[in-house]
Amino acid sequence: MKLATLAGRHGVTAAAIRVEGHWRRLPFPDLNDLLTHTGAAIDTVAHLAGEALEGWRLACPLPRPAKVVCCGLNYADHIREMGRELPAHPTLFAKYADSLLGPEDDIALPAGVDVDWEAELAVVVGADLERADVVTAGRAIAAYTVANDISVRDWQNRTLQWFQGKAWDRSTPLGPVLVTPDEIDVAGGVDVICRVNGVQRQRGNTKTLVFDPAALLAYVSTFTRLRPGDVVLTGTPGGVGMGMKPPLYLADGDVVETEIPGIGTLQNRFTTR
Amino acid sequence: MKLATLAGRHGVTAAAIRVEGHWRRLPFPDLNDLLTHTGAAIDTVAHLAGEALEGWRLACPLPRPAKVVCCGLNYADHIREMGRELPAHPTLFAKYADSLLGPEDDIALPAGVDVDWEAELAVVVGADLERADVVTAGRAIAAYTVANDISVRDWQNRTLQWFQGKAWDRSTPLGPVLVTPDEIDVAGGVDVICRVNGVQRQRGNTKTLVFDPAALLAYVSTFTRLRPGDVVLTGTPGGVGMGMKPPLYLADGDVVETEIPGIGTLQNRFTTR
Repeated sequence: MKLATLAGRHGVTAAAIRVEGHWRRLPFPDLNDLLTHTGAAIDTVAHLAGEALEGWRLACPLPRPAKVVCCGLNYADHIREMGRELPAHPTLFAKYADSLLGPEDDIALPAGVDVDWEAELAVVVGADLERADVVTAGRAIAAYTVANDISVRDWQNRTLQWFQGKAWDRSTPLGPVLVTPDEIDVAGGVDVICRVNGVQRQRGNTKTLVFDPAALLAYVSTFTRLRPGDVVLTGTPGGVGMGMKPPLYLADGDVVETEIPGIGTLQNRFTTR
Repeated sequence: MKLATLAGRHGVTAAAIRVEGHWRRLPFPDLNDLLTHTGAAIDTVAHLAGEALEGWRLACPLPRPAKVVCCGLNYADHIREMGRELPAHPTLFAKYADSLLGPEDDIALPAGVDVDWEAELAVVVGADLERADVVTAGRAIAAYTVANDISVRDWQNRTLQWFQGKAWDRSTPLGPVLVTPDEIDVAGGVDVICRVNGVQRQRGNTKTLVFDPAALLAYVSTFTRLRPGDVVLTGTPGGVGMGMKPPLYLADGDVVETEIPGIGTLQNRFTTR
């Protein structure tokens, strides 16, 4: 099942479900609201599908997760690229709902900062998780989606803590849709791809994740509760601009495509404001 | 002016104002709600003071800030204690509303982790701040309060990112009251004190802050918007347990007192669960 948050006119949004090639309205203003009602059982909404929403555009599927937890250094090839060793524990940092952006929106950041790409699989939480074991955490996965953990590298590297390079408002595209776990085999392996101006810069596969989605959710829930609609970003594979020699960062007008086959593609233009 | 969120019976809370030695009710359920209505002009609520609230206890003054941004390494003496150099930029990380705790609540964390104290001055945001200059940020300070950035050191040091040692649910006491800026001279210098079982472990002074409250708010607002009721923790002075030789951490039953004269004292018992 594929779900989205669609934006119509005058700032109106609606949750929607994909049925036979059309988006049909669900009786929730967005997917955060839907998840609050359904928890992980988002497939139970299928019978609520209403009229087709023609001419609406894809919005950020989850406009207000209370928590957006990100994992760094989770693909073996990216870890090597950054000159580090395979970790015993996931490296975690936070973003905000304010950090998120729709799948077709411009990424507008100030001129003069070093903006890099990080294609990622994102996991959408569907249940309250507090000190959950891995099995419970796995059952609580409501859906998967695509994210690009756009990073302002010079700010990220100003201090030991990455947060100030990671939590820029409206920097992190998410979407285009939420896909239920029955439609995508993350453990078997799905590709995570980033292209800049059509040139492939990243292609990793989730079967090389050091910490898989259930393990990440369980780990995070050890110290902080997760709730339906929260998002966990699972880290990026090799091929970021910072790892190139010399480093390559986004320039005004560059188009970043972030794709996971089976979910979809984010297409965001980078602009300097 | 001193304001608090008080808890009565059956989970009811109320914002309250201190008048002639008594807490009097304000028509808001808590200080987050009050700040949403008043912004930085919280002194405008004085005329709304209602009946005295006798027998209510002090609750977490801000139960649901959207952002709790913390600064590390902001007192020259603590920076030296941790073996680091004076920074050009503030080191920032995030906590959650879930991390917060009332001024008299127990800090209950699992046995077997290394729990340390960090007494801090907390700044309460009173206006929308987006790419604000320091003057604008200074005017947006609604109040000051006391926090203890309780840190799970072994988790903090598992990876390069401190977040997983800092964002434990119900770890970070805040309060006991909010004090408006006219009552406290942060630039002139106020002491920030931590005692464990009555033994003073930290005593710093805000006049030695590397980045003062207005500078921190302005800096954070460069990358993410701050709103009324958000909280910024300004860092801790020297004297944390991790800096002792050998390191000293909290034990079941220890009582942590965190004091800033002119604001008040948090008194929290540490318990292992």
